[in-house]
Amino acid sequence: MKTMRQHTQLVIAAAMAAMLPLGGASSADAPRPAYRSPGEIIAAAPASHWRRPEPDNILIMELATGHVVIELAPRFAPEHVANIRTLARERFWDGATVYRVQDNFVAQFGDADGDDEAKARPLGTAKRKLPAEFHRPAEGLPFDRLPDVDGWAPEVGFSEGFPAARNPRTGTAWLAHCYGMVGAGRSNADDSSIGAELYVVIGQSPRQLDDNITVVGRVLLGIEHLSALRRGPGPMGFFEQPGDRTPIRSIRLASTLPGAASIPIEVMRTDSLSFHDAVEARRNRIDDFYRRPAGHIDLCNVPVPVRTSAD
Amino acid sequence: MKTMRQHTQLVIAAAMAAMLPLGGASSADAPRPAYRSPGEIIAAAPASHWRRPEPDNILIMELATGHVVIELAPRFAPEHVANIRTLARERFWDGATVYRVQDNFVAQFGDADGDDEAKARPLGTAKRKLPAEFHRPAEGLPFDRLPDVDGWAPEVGFSEGFPAARNPRTGTAWLAHCYGMVGAGRSNADDSSIGAELYVVIGQSPRQLDDNITVVGRVLLGIEHLSALRRGPGPMGFFEQPGDRTPIRSIRLASTLPGAASIPIEVMRTDSLSFHDAVEARRNRIDDFYRRPAGHIDLCNVPVPVRTSAD
Repeated sequence: MKTMRQHTQLVIAAAMAAMLPLGGASSADAPRPAYRSPGEIIAAAPASHWRRPEPDNILIMELATGHVVIELAPRFAPEHVANIRTLARERFWDGATVYRVQDNFVAQFGDADGDDEAKARPLGTAKRKLPAEFHRPAEGLPFDRLPDVDGWAPEVGFSEGFPAARNPRTGTAWLAHCYGMVGAGRSNADDSSIGAELYVVIGQSPRQLDDNITVVGRVLLGIEHLSALRRGPGPMGFFEQPGDRTPIRSIRLASTLPGAASIPIEVMRTDSLSFHDAVEARRNRIDDFYRRPAGHIDLCNVPVPVRTSAD
Repeated sequence: MKTMRQHTQLVIAAAMAAMLPLGGASSADAPRPAYRSPGEIIAAAPASHWRRPEPDNILIMELATGHVVIELAPRFAPEHVANIRTLARERFWDGATVYRVQDNFVAQFGDADGDDEAKARPLGTAKRKLPAEFHRPAEGLPFDRLPDVDGWAPEVGFSEGFPAARNPRTGTAWLAHCYGMVGAGRSNADDSSIGAELYVVIGQSPRQLDDNITVVGRVLLGIEHLSALRRGPGPMGFFEQPGDRTPIRSIRLASTLPGAASIPIEVMRTDSLSFHDAVEARRNRIDDFYRRPAGHIDLCNVPVPVRTSAD
C-alpha cells in the first residue's frame, strides 16, 4: 500500500499538489491563475498577513506533557476575559485539574471540588458574578464573512481570528463552537459562569451551544495535550476519582511572564488576502487527489493558521 | 462552582430536563405534547425501534486498551466490504498497527510497511484491485432525509444507520464523513484502495472527502481507544518509529467468532419514530439550560444510538 502517504500528503498538506490550471480554456484571452494549495498560499503569505496576539490575551497552560496556548477574545467576552486574567495572575488554576474528558465533545478543567465549599479553591479577588456574554452587538465588530450557507446562523465568518456568527435581524454576533474553541461552563442561570471552569471543544463542533453560553477564546497551540487525554468513564466523561484527573501545573497570562513581548506566536490575519485565498483553495480543491471539489466549506472546517518562530 | 455538573448533565444527557410544555397556550383545544429529551425518547424506544447488525457486518478490533466495534456498510461499498471480510478472516491485521493519529482528523491503521514490498504483510486471497465505490445509485436505497440545510450536499439523512447524502440531479448517494466513520485510504487513483488501510474520523467532519473516497462503515463502540491515542509527530500524524505505533492484537469478523449470533449490540433504527423524535428533540431543545433552541441540526451532530446488553 503506497496509498496512504501519498493520499494524506495531498489531502492535508496539499503542499505537493501540482500547479494545475483551474480547468478548461478560459473564455477570455488571459489565462486563469494557476491553482495554489492552501499550504502554498500560507507559506507565501507576507509578514503583514500575520499578527502577534497581545500577551494580555494569551493564556499558557502547562501540563506534564506540554503546553496548551489559548488566545482570549475580549471583544466578545470582556468581563469573562478580565476575570480569567485575574484568576491566572492569582494562580487560581495552579494545581487544579482537567477533570472531564468526554469523547467527541469537550475537555474541561478548573476546580473539580468547586461544588464543595469546604474544599473549593479560593477565588481571590476574582468576581463571583458576571453578566452572561453569549453575544455582543454586531456593529463595530470586524467580520469577514464566508459566502457559504450555514444551518446554525444567518451569517458566519471570522472576527479577528475567531470563527463567529452574526444575525442581521437581531444585530448580534457571537463566537462559534468550532474545534478548539474555549467556553465558560455555566449552570442553568445565564449569568452563572465566571470563567473559572473552562472547556475546550475536542470533537464535532457542538454549534447548538452557540449563543447559549459565553465563549472566551480559542486554542492556538497544543490542543493535542487535551484532545488525546484518556476519556473519563461514564457518558459525560467526568473523572470522579481524583487520581484519574490530569493535574495542571500552571496557567499563566503571557503578559506576566518574563519576555512576554517576544512570545513567538503568530496567527494569520483572517482579514488578509492570504487567508481569503487559502479558504477559497480549500473550498474548491484542484489537485491530483480530489475528483469532486466540494464548492463549499463549513465555518468549522477552516483552520486559522498559527505559526511559531520554530516553524 | 456547582455550575459544571449541572451544566453538563443538562447539556449532554438531558435526562434530567423538566417536562416543559413546548411553550405558550395552543391555539387549538388539545394541549401540545410535553417536550421529551433525546435521552428520554431513546430510553422509552420499543424493541422494534432497535436492530441487531448482521454479524457478517461487524468488525471487532482488539487493542491493549479495549475493543473497537465497526459496522460495515455493504450497500455502499460491497466490493470493499467483501475484501475487508477476507482480510479479517485471514487475519491480515493481527499484529498490524495504528500508525497514524492526526489531531482533529483521523486515526489510521493497517500495514505501516505496505509501501515496502520486502516487508509488506501478505494479502492472502484478498483482491489487489477494486473499483472505486465513492457513491452508488440512490434508487433502491432507504434514505431518511433530514429537513435541514447542508452546505456539502443537496440532501442529507440516514440510510440504515449511516449518515449519508444524496444528489437528485446525479441520482447518486454516498456516505458522509462524520465523526466515527471509517474509510478506505487510497492514493491518487480512484481505484487504488482495497480496504487494507482504513481510517476513522476523530475530529470535525471532513466532509470535503465525501464522494472522493470509499467509505466502508462506522464505529459503533470503543472509538475512544482510537480518538484518545497520542497524536503522531508532524503535521500529518504518522508515527515513523515502529515502537511508537499502537499494536493491533486482532481484527475479527463477528460472524467468525463463537456465539456470533448473540453479540449483544443494538443500533437504533434510523427509520424509526424514536429516532425521528430524538432528532427533533435535539433540533429544538427545550429545557432549563438552553436559552435559544437552534432550530437546526447538522447531519454530523446527530448521534445514532447504540446499546449493549450491559446498558
